[in-house]
Amino acid sequence: MSHNSFGRLFRVTTWGESHGPAIGAVVDGCPPGLALSEAVIQPWLDRRRPGRSRFTTQRQEPDQVRILSGVFEGHTTGTPIALQIDNIDQRSKDYGDIAERFRPGHADLTYTLKYGIRDWRGGGRASARETAMRVAAGAVARLVLGTKVRIRGALVQMGPHAIDRARWNWEAVQANPFFCPDPVAAAQWESYLDGVRRAGSSCGAMVEVVAEGAPPGLGAPIYGKLDADLAAALMSINAVKGVEIGDGFAAALLSGEANADEMHMRDGLVHFASNHAGGILGGISTGQDVVARFAVKPTSSILAPRASVDRQGREVTVTTKGRHDPCVGIRAVPVGEAMMACVLADHLLRQRAQNPDAPDTPRLPRN
Amino acid sequence: MSHNSFGRLFRVTTWGESHGPAIGAVVDGCPPGLALSEAVIQPWLDRRRPGRSRFTTQRQEPDQVRILSGVFEGHTTGTPIALQIDNIDQRSKDYGDIAERFRPGHADLTYTLKYGIRDWRGGGRASARETAMRVAAGAVARLVLGTKVRIRGALVQMGPHAIDRARWNWEAVQANPFFCPDPVAAAQWESYLDGVRRAGSSCGAMVEVVAEGAPPGLGAPIYGKLDADLAAALMSINAVKGVEIGDGFAAALLSGEANADEMHMRDGLVHFASNHAGGILGGISTGQDVVARFAVKPTSSILAPRASVDRQGREVTVTTKGRHDPCVGIRAVPVGEAMMACVLADHLLRQRAQNPDAPDTPRLPRN
Amino acid sequence: MSHNSFGRLFRVTTWGESHGPAIGAVVDGCPPGLALSEAVIQPWLDRRRPGRSRFTTQRQEPDQVRILSGVFEGHTTGTPIALQIDNIDQRSKDYGDIAERFRPGHADLTYTLKYGIRDWRGGGRASARETAMRVAAGAVARLVLGTKVRIRGALVQMGPHAIDRARWNWEAVQANPFFCPDPVAAAQWESYLDGVRRAGSSCGAMVEVVAEGAPPGLGAPIYGKLDADLAAALMSINAVKGVEIGDGFAAALLSGEANADEMHMRDGLVHFASNHAGGILGGISTGQDVVARFAVKPTSSILAPRASVDRQGREVTVTTKGRHDPCVGIRAVPVGEAMMACVLADHLLRQRAQNPDAPDTPRLPRN
Amino acid sequence: MSHNSFGRLFRVTTWGESHGPAIGAVVDGCPPGLALSEAVIQPWLDRRRPGRSRFTTQRQEPDQVRILSGVFEGHTTGTPIALQIDNIDQRSKDYGDIAERFRPGHADLTYTLKYGIRDWRGGGRASARETAMRVAAGAVARLVLGTKVRIRGALVQMGPHAIDRARWNWEAVQANPFFCPDPVAAAQWESYLDGVRRAGSSCGAMVEVVAEGAPPGLGAPIYGKLDADLAAALMSINAVKGVEIGDGFAAALLSGEANADEMHMRDGLVHFASNHAGGILGGISTGQDVVARFAVKPTSSILAPRASVDRQGREVTVTTKGRHDPCVGIRAVPVGEAMMACVLADHLLRQRAQNPDAPDTPRLPRN
Repeated sequence: MSHNSFGRLFRVTTWGESHGPAIGAVVDGCPPGLALSEAVIQPWLDRRRPGRSRFTTQRQEPDQVRILSGVFEGHTTGTPIALQIDNIDQRSKDYGDIAERFRPGHADLTYTLKYGIRDWRGGGRASARETAMRVAAGAVARLVLGTKVRIRGALVQMGPHAIDRARWNWEAVQANPFFCPDPVAAAQWESYLDGVRRAGSSCGAMVEVVAEGAPPGLGAPIYGKLDADLAAALMSINAVKGVEIGDGFAAALLSGEANADEMHMRDGLVHFASNHAGGILGGISTGQDVVARFAVKPTSSILAPRASVDRQGREVTVTTKGRHDPCVGIRAVPVGEAMMACVLADHLLRQRAQNPDAPDTPRLPRN
Repeated sequence: MSHNSFGRLFRVTTWGESHGPAIGAVVDGCPPGLALSEAVIQPWLDRRRPGRSRFTTQRQEPDQVRILSGVFEGHTTGTPIALQIDNIDQRSKDYGDIAERFRPGHADLTYTLKYGIRDWRGGGRASARETAMRVAAGAVARLVLGTKVRIRGALVQMGPHAIDRARWNWEAVQANPFFCPDPVAAAQWESYLDGVRRAGSSCGAMVEVVAEGAPPGLGAPIYGKLDADLAAALMSINAVKGVEIGDGFAAALLSGEANADEMHMRDGLVHFASNHAGGILGGISTGQDVVARFAVKPTSSILAPRASVDRQGREVTVTTKGRHDPCVGIRAVPVGEAMMACVLADHLLRQRAQNPDAPDTPRLPRN
Repeated sequence: MSHNSFGRLFRVTTWGESHGPAIGAVVDGCPPGLALSEAVIQPWLDRRRPGRSRFTTQRQEPDQVRILSGVFEGHTTGTPIALQIDNIDQRSKDYGDIAERFRPGHADLTYTLKYGIRDWRGGGRASARETAMRVAAGAVARLVLGTKVRIRGALVQMGPHAIDRARWNWEAVQANPFFCPDPVAAAQWESYLDGVRRAGSSCGAMVEVVAEGAPPGLGAPIYGKLDADLAAALMSINAVKGVEIGDGFAAALLSGEANADEMHMRDGLVHFASNHAGGILGGISTGQDVVARFAVKPTSSILAPRASVDRQGREVTVTTKGRHDPCVGIRAVPVGEAMMACVLADHLLRQRAQNPDAPDTPRLPRN
Repeated sequence: MSHNSFGRLFRVTTWGESHGPAIGAVVDGCPPGLALSEAVIQPWLDRRRPGRSRFTTQRQEPDQVRILSGVFEGHTTGTPIALQIDNIDQRSKDYGDIAERFRPGHADLTYTLKYGIRDWRGGGRASARETAMRVAAGAVARLVLGTKVRIRGALVQMGPHAIDRARWNWEAVQANPFFCPDPVAAAQWESYLDGVRRAGSSCGAMVEVVAEGAPPGLGAPIYGKLDADLAAALMSINAVKGVEIGDGFAAALLSGEANADEMHMRDGLVHFASNHAGGILGGISTGQDVVARFAVKPTSSILAPRASVDRQGREVTVTTKGRHDPCVGIRAVPVGEAMMACVLADHLLRQRAQNPDAPDTPRLPRN
């Protein structure tokens, strides 16, 4: 992860501000010969698109992606893939108030302290709008991973309201505006979030991303561990304050016996009795589901007045109008999936480079 | 983070196995002119050294570091600093049992699946012994940061037993074998951990690291965010399963109002009424304390028998003898501090490169 | 240098094919606060633009650059700068003949062997069209370097015809279509190149780039040496087959005495009696002019028929029509300048990070 | 190439000063399962070792390499390989004279200007002694490349005396102290270099390195071109001032027809009638011999007095005693081979990652 690029071999660079003419990404290092077109990417973008329900920002952006390079006659060529989305619905005047004053809990202040200048319109570079390009890049990463690998995300907690995991149903995720896998919780969240929204407030959330079918051996210890790269990738998403793998923080409460994922053989493959590890041991994937979870703080742009300061160092009160997500964690679900896809794709290429003969299932003996 | 190196400008590469002749690190990119000798590094290593109490591994390693390059007449020269520690107390025979069988919850299996070969003696490259070199590199990083930046860590939870933050006392951290800031909790942990140890079991833990005095402006959005780099750095430590910044996962429970760190002016500087953000907004440091927390799972090497498999794909039972930490989280405290130091040092250099005129306190107006 | 990006801190990524909808660059890591607009970049692009004389390709491309991000109210913001040029004058049908057959001396074959697929229209990604984005990025790099650093290039040899260095005149460079610093040679080259062009042939050339005013201390030994980075940057330009610094290959002929650039003091600064070293010693700039030279092979797309093979592995004869530069070295002059600018800008930032107190002139004592 | 590391996947980091206790390298990213021991590396080091004839420095260094990590039971494990050589024969007092004064043409001055401090003993980090570690790393790289790839180097010019290429004989290279492939030239050089040496002078040289059997497809355009990476790798060798590929600078003199390497089919493979390109087109290997040449300037440490300055900014005369190579180009031959090996190994892994199904011979059709 370096400035505005991430990945070692499958490398994504993004650019663009919330209210500039466009945002974009360059996906470098993608293998050639993959069937790629705008139609392959667009459905993933549509899932993240704003304005799909009353629970997300009402900014109207069609988010139509264009591929400007790296694809010829419907297939990737191995050269850099330029992806671009025009910004359509900029209403910069909404942001006049925050040109000079800093929203508490927002990057307004830190960009100013760091750079001395910032594009304040809509949050500029710090806007979650940038995450559209991650989703676009993630669509390409899914092609690299192939159909054996399936990456899905879900919102598992909204504010203080967690799902009941016993009711987990992946189909439900598509059936409500929250990517919630628990239909009962989804119904509750609807009224809860309506209340938050009407109060001009916001709330946090928790997202879980699961990759099924990832081969064992992904991850490059010691400093390119799969979980370390996932942690960076997920923490880099706007408003994320915590990341955990498998049991995560709950693992700290367990005894060594309880935490050990026991192993058996089944059909010639290593089979695990549990997955406390979240599919990663020693920074390397085991072949189990790779499970990551991240916490999203409440949106910092709220109507409630908060004490703050302005560019001239004067104390002021800030009330943010504009069009904001009351729970930015919702649209973080497809973003989290995309980051998981990009990290896995990168490690798949890295693994292939160093260990071309490694098995794609947890098969023994290895040598 | 890439294979066995991390950092962009202040760059650390480590090498070595638990039972090889030595372990080492190369610290590249360190500014010249800093007063450095073995005596500067050794105290930090001594804090992490095994065998200091009955609560850590009984392996006896003096962990005497040698500087083999990059220092001339007592000062860094700007060329790579090679650090080395000889391994003294290898008892590889202890590990004969695990040469052929995989400890549940350990990297044994994944190294084998990835590489087809592994140095199984003492965990080889996957051993926590590698973290000694992180501590050594961290000592150099502290010099880069200077005396204004103070980095301290503490164990805030052992197994299910959390500290009472109202009793937090940094002096206490030095006064017990657990780096525990709560003297009352420390006393309780002693008997708790004795029980765990005698049972041949192990327990998890939670570590908190705080950096005071870090200047604002550190962090390179979007993909070199300070929190993203910290997340990777801390997640790369052995046995870590979760990382959070500031309120972390608890932030998901808050309303936007509650989470907003309000700002006032004090003596010409921006002053924050709270620090839910853990000193980082938009991936950039605010000038407040940088606060990170990470969860350490229980040691996977335990005496209790667990179901597993061996290299030949046969089902076996594994009982790990050897000399292990019943709570590997304890010695993770100085390691977490070191990783924080390395990440901050790297970002200090990066910030200086791009923004040499940025203020080192949260001072406005910036331009 | 990595796939389609180069530079460590001032980092340039380019994308785009010769006959795709557009080409572009992302310039990341640029310091904030620099006055930048399309008008600042355009003049540099115009110098490289095709179709300015009968001696370059007749493809008509206005090469109008657009800035899509990273600039706000006329100044850089420190966030990635997206630069884009639409392709206007594609005549892909000219290339139908080479869709299936490989031009000798061209990347046609190797792209096919490497990727199995290529955009053959106009050379696709391998086209010199990509170098327009280097020139655009170079314009930004010049801002980073500031007005004290002046970078100029010249064509010093065309085919077998070298300039007479005694007649070197920088003003002349602007006064002829060859960037030739020797007015007499320029006149000779005109008739020579007319002959080459009419014969459907092509010729090679030699380019020299000089940076005046670069501070001492740039370059990061051992593997980030200034000359090594320059060598890579210049060798990466299309058709370049050799790079030298200072006396370069001629230095191999000298005795140690003759090659030594003797030093004297003048006005408190180290002054050199000569510059065989080309301004670089031990991979670090001395404060003298940085001098690099590179050799450009003759354009491989020629009318003369050559023996070759096609995609099906059949022997064929290739004659390339299309619109090509008879001497691609001419337009390589602004490209070489741009690469020098980018490399120096990157090393300026790197130097500032590690050695913020280093003098910007060769002043002693240093510490 | 970055500070003291190079390579993207096969990554080499070196450390150490000429008169420190030791020098070392960390080779990261090496595939597992390769048979490696000190005995595999030592012969390559012996070829570069000083003091083998009266024509190289008389410093007596056995240059015995030790492997400290990354190898288990005789095979690489995929973890970082630490290589180390102790410095034995330091005679630092020889260098007392240059502690305070700068040798013309040497890095003495630039290290001081950059860092303000330097280890002046024997050239410190700028010493050619560092190249021993490149040779050691190159021995590992050769294992990665396998036996199909053969890399050999030769000295093709000493001072003004070039070889006669018609007499090229690889066997001769092993039979004289100059790595000279022309037995007649070797005899002449002997008396020539004796003269240079007795005069306390030095001379330059030209080295050619040839890799046979490298597969097509190596190289990652646009900024990871094989020739660009080779140029950087060779230019980073001490005293190198120029690098060329294939015909190199001579290509600038050719017409397009003459420079085109015509292609025919032979036994199902593309066969080239010539190799002006030096085995690289568009930055990607063709499957032909990869041919690179580099120019080495005369050693800057000479007995003849030269005008210079000292640390205090006073004008002085410098005469360098110490033990120096009169023609440092000789020992650059094995170093050049090693750098070629490392670059090819790195690109082999990179190619495998992105294009695992690419042919290892120039076979058509590719898709």
